Amino acid sequence: MKKSVFGSPQEAEAAFYEALERGDIDAMMEVWADDEEVVCIHPGGPRLTGYEAVLKSWAQIFSSGQRLRIQISHEVVLSGMMLTVHSVHENIAAQGEQRPGQPVVATNAYLRTADGWRMIVHHASPAPAMQQTSDLAPAVGPKVLH
Amino acid sequence: MKKSVFGSPQEAEAAFYEALERGDIDAMMEVWADDEEVVCIHPGGPRLTGYEAVLKSWAQIFSSGQRLRIQISHEVVLSGMMLTVHSVHENIAAQGEQRPGQPVVATNAYLRTADGWRMIVHHASPAPAMQQTSDLAPAVGPKVLH
Repeated sequence: MKKSVFGSPQEAEAAFYEALERGDIDAMMEVWADDEEVVCIHPGGPRLTGYEAVLKSWAQIFSSGQRLRIQISHEVVLSGMMLTVHSVHENIAAQGEQRPGQPVVATNAYLRTADGWRMIVHHASPAPAMQQTSDLAPAVGPKVLH
Repeated sequence: MKKSVFGSPQEAEAAFYEALERGDIDAMMEVWADDEEVVCIHPGGPRLTGYEAVLKSWAQIFSSGQRLRIQISHEVVLSGMMLTVHSVHENIAAQGEQRPGQPVVATNAYLRTADGWRMIVHHASPAPAMQQTSDLAPAVGPKVLH
């Protein structure tokens, strides 16, 4: 089976959150670089390193069958030629529920590989409920550092 | 006053943790890129964006006068030409106390600027007490992806 090729970090990120919403382990693991040094931190969890450990963790998460709706907001984009970092707010709700869960902040890093852009870091952690203050980036549109 | 110039992400990171241990706000803010798009997440806290918000948060943290001992371990280095990401375990103890506090995992990103390498992302979050399993990188020496 041919793997998807993501032409930009944005494409890889869209595929990541789509796979997360659908609970699709194959689609999820297509997003990750197949490398021993990838890093994944689920909210409140330990740091996992390596493709196999990351695969196992997502398989376990998806095995519950719980489907999620995830809306990404407040994206900050820090982009380099080979490596790009996105900082996002994940607004997650269980499917069928109106009320969103606790906000999650995530730092996602993508690497340009021979097979296109792949995720190499996903660090997610619970955050206090958000307030619209000047400390926070506006909700509309990504910001680009350089 | 001339600002420090860090020749590598490692130098910037060493200065970051030294400033954190000393509670030195000037040294801390020399490490950060003076940019509106820098991102800082303290453990359990909201995402802060922008140099001023980050400065304010460190000033508040340091105002307690509490000094810390911080040992970094299990570093994973994901390096690009312009942008580098470090994933580390922060082993933090209050000065004078033997027992370490709850482990913290941090994702730190550094940008190569006209003034050398500067921190642009610090995302720290509490982690469960660490176990030496195959899921975790060995304690000795940084790993380099490419």
